[in-house]
Amino acid sequence: MAGEVRELKVDLGERSYPIYIGTGLLDGIGERFLERRFPVKSPIMLVTDESVADLYADRLEASFAAAGYKVTTAVVPSGEATKSLEMLDELIGVALQGGLDRKSTVVALGGGVIGDLAGFVAATYMRGVRFVQVPTTILAHDSSVGGKVAVNHSLAKNIIGAFYQPEFVLYDLDTLASLPIREVRAGLSEVIKHGLIWNADFVKWCDDNADRLLGLDPEALGYALYEGCKVKATVVSQDERENDLRAILNLGHTIGHALEAVAGYGELVHGEAIAIGMVGSARLAARFGYSPDIAETTEAIFRKFGLPVRIPHEINTDEVMSAMLHDKKFQEGQMVFVVPTAIGTVEIRNDVPVSWVREIVDGLREGK
Amino acid sequence: MAGEVRELKVDLGERSYPIYIGTGLLDGIGERFLERRFPVKSPIMLVTDESVADLYADRLEASFAAAGYKVTTAVVPSGEATKSLEMLDELIGVALQGGLDRKSTVVALGGGVIGDLAGFVAATYMRGVRFVQVPTTILAHDSSVGGKVAVNHSLAKNIIGAFYQPEFVLYDLDTLASLPIREVRAGLSEVIKHGLIWNADFVKWCDDNADRLLGLDPEALGYALYEGCKVKATVVSQDERENDLRAILNLGHTIGHALEAVAGYGELVHGEAIAIGMVGSARLAARFGYSPDIAETTEAIFRKFGLPVRIPHEINTDEVMSAMLHDKKFQEGQMVFVVPTAIGTVEIRNDVPVSWVREIVDGLREGK
Ligand SMILES: NC(=O)c1ccc[n+]([C@@H]2O[C@H](COP(=O)([O-])OP(=O)(O)OC[C@H]3O[C@@H](n4cnc5c(N)ncnc54)[C@H](O)[C@@H]3O)[C@@H](O)[C@H]2O)c1
Ligand SMILES: NC(=O)c1ccc[n+]([C@@H]2O[C@H](COP(=O)([O-])OP(=O)(O)OC[C@H]3O[C@@H](n4cnc5c(N)ncnc54)[C@H](O)[C@@H]3O)[C@@H](O)[C@H]2O)c1
Ligand SMILES: [Zn+2]
Ligand SMILES: [Zn+2]
Repeated sequence: MAGEVRELKVDLGERSYPIYIGTGLLDGIGERFLERRFPVKSPIMLVTDESVADLYADRLEASFAAAGYKVTTAVVPSGEATKSLEMLDELIGVALQGGLDRKSTVVALGGGVIGDLAGFVAATYMRGVRFVQVPTTILAHDSSVGGKVAVNHSLAKNIIGAFYQPEFVLYDLDTLASLPIREVRAGLSEVIKHGLIWNADFVKWCDDNADRLLGLDPEALGYALYEGCKVKATVVSQDERENDLRAILNLGHTIGHALEAVAGYGELVHGEAIAIGMVGSARLAARFGYSPDIAETTEAIFRKFGLPVRIPHEINTDEVMSAMLHDKKFQEGQMVFVVPTAIGTVEIRNDVPVSWVREIVDGLREGK
Repeated sequence: MAGEVRELKVDLGERSYPIYIGTGLLDGIGERFLERRFPVKSPIMLVTDESVADLYADRLEASFAAAGYKVTTAVVPSGEATKSLEMLDELIGVALQGGLDRKSTVVALGGGVIGDLAGFVAATYMRGVRFVQVPTTILAHDSSVGGKVAVNHSLAKNIIGAFYQPEFVLYDLDTLASLPIREVRAGLSEVIKHGLIWNADFVKWCDDNADRLLGLDPEALGYALYEGCKVKATVVSQDERENDLRAILNLGHTIGHALEAVAGYGELVHGEAIAIGMVGSARLAARFGYSPDIAETTEAIFRKFGLPVRIPHEINTDEVMSAMLHDKKFQEGQMVFVVPTAIGTVEIRNDVPVSWVREIVDGLREGK
């Protein structure tokens, strides 16, 4: 049964769209398609992954069928490797065979991997068809705002893509019940990030409500995802194409990406890596003369959520530094970093000495 | 030495861009990049094909180098098969290795194949970088307006793509001197099409100036390409995303595409196939009660340009009809066609009896 539904508008002029957050939403998707006059004659393609398909695909299929839509479902392997041009090729084939036309819709049912991949299919099939997202992870609250869609190249992640906004996002909290606890924590890491860059009260609220969030209490989770999406939507509305402001969303990501690149398979997931990265950025803040409380508060909240705040000892500082160098954020001994100035606000600095970063990375290693 | 340069503005709001048409333009490209403040620090990728590379790539490279830009050149095989996701993958790799960043430019030096492929690279690399077109075929006057970029899928042509406008188009008529005569004629077929749908005077002018055009007289050619681009630009400005008006650009293409699909390799190139298709559409016009002169004039002008106006006898009517059926333009015994109502104007009809089309296709076969 459907409980309270929160609605957030992502404000992008002509490309604006709503995000619906609540429980019991999956079964109503066909109705929403009809309400929005998505043509019944144009087939839908549902893209999902192997873990999610068995759990929720039939409910969407049934809802579409009841509303009179023909659906073709494409189930792809779970995991990051699925975000590839080979998979794009395959899905375009499925779309053609399913008879999708220019008025058709591609629906992404899954986490960020499925959202990014299916979104790129929608952006490029016949030069662009409708796109709808049905996120099933907490991390996907992040990818459901901002319209970044992409696949990976063997030499770089997310390098082939587009800015492509969905028609709407249907966030059914019920689907999160099956999420492994590690994915829950990792997703909440990015939710907390949105607080850290923009909204101190929300950080406090997360801290106070850690147990409810980790326990997937629908009321708390609905509020947190709403607030997380709202921060991102506010930033993105002001800078859709990442010219300046949008960069603040990368808090913790410079160190985080380097850790992901260096860590062995499965050792660190994205949300974990950026939690460590955010602690690093907060320590940088202290170097720039901002309050050392920032680092303390940041570290404490991630600990409370069961997220790592130290670099695993297998990873050495040189590797991390050279992964960052590869990441092109260096420039003549100085680096660009998003640095907190207080809990809830950040600045972008392009004058961060590489030596400071090295010291901070080194100081973050386990056992130091 | 540079002669007169015609400049046409393609009017698309924020995405407007100029097309420069003239002689001696290649060597000035670096200067134009500087004038437009394309950042000198951001490397350029030049995409071209094996036939064109040897002829003109070094002149662009030299001009870029003189202006202080670093260029990476990617040479791909000539021909339609190059428009593939595999090639996209390869070119993204070249871009990464060449250090292209978000302020970089992808330059297409070649015909429509290179324009479509390099344009799709530009549209997707890092979610979109600058794109500049340097067309070297007559047919490419068509692809240089309208922003359609794409690659092919094994099941369908041009099915994976985007709408992505260039920063500017540099059309150096000198490059056309090396074009095989068959490509010259085929390109002019599409130029004449632009007259047939929009501008009767221009059709007359083409007819009067056939020899100068086929002889690549720069003054005549510059004028014809300017007028051809202008018609397309007018249509596209009113309907960038092909919702309605833009469909008139498909005059001759329903039959033309079917002929291309059915013809053996090399038997018919695109411009030839659509010339036959345009004769077919003109005959349809007569069935709808429009003047039979339309068909006569249409056939006469294509003959004058040495273009085919009959379907080669190896191709049989059933094959052509079933290729059209596959092309999804059928609907319950009726087809959608662009039909001339006079020389210089067309209408879109969705009530064309399949039986008429069959009779016309059959009547167009050689020897009938
Ligand atoms: N586009 C953007 O703005 C943006 C932002 C952040 C992240 N991303 C991308 O998102 C991806 C990471 O997102 P993610 O963490 O959601 O990854 P994911 O889609 O791989 O999901 C994580 C795992 O959870 C499983 N899963 C998903 N939903 C489930 C459910 N309800 N129950 C049980 N299992 C479930 C998946 O099968 C997968 O194994 C990365 O590729 C990243 O680049 C994109
Ligand atoms: N994007 C659009 O709006 C649009 C419009 C029309 C056509 N197209 C596409 O354009 C392609 C056809 O264009 P095209 O006919 O220019 O094809 P092309 O790029 O394959 O060029 C034709 C041949 O001429 C050679 N060539 C090119 N320039 C030359 C020169 N100056 N001297 C000697 N040889 C030269 C090429 O190597 C090739 O072999 C198709 O893929 C079609 O789908 C796109
Ligand atoms: Zn992230
Ligand atoms: Zn054409």
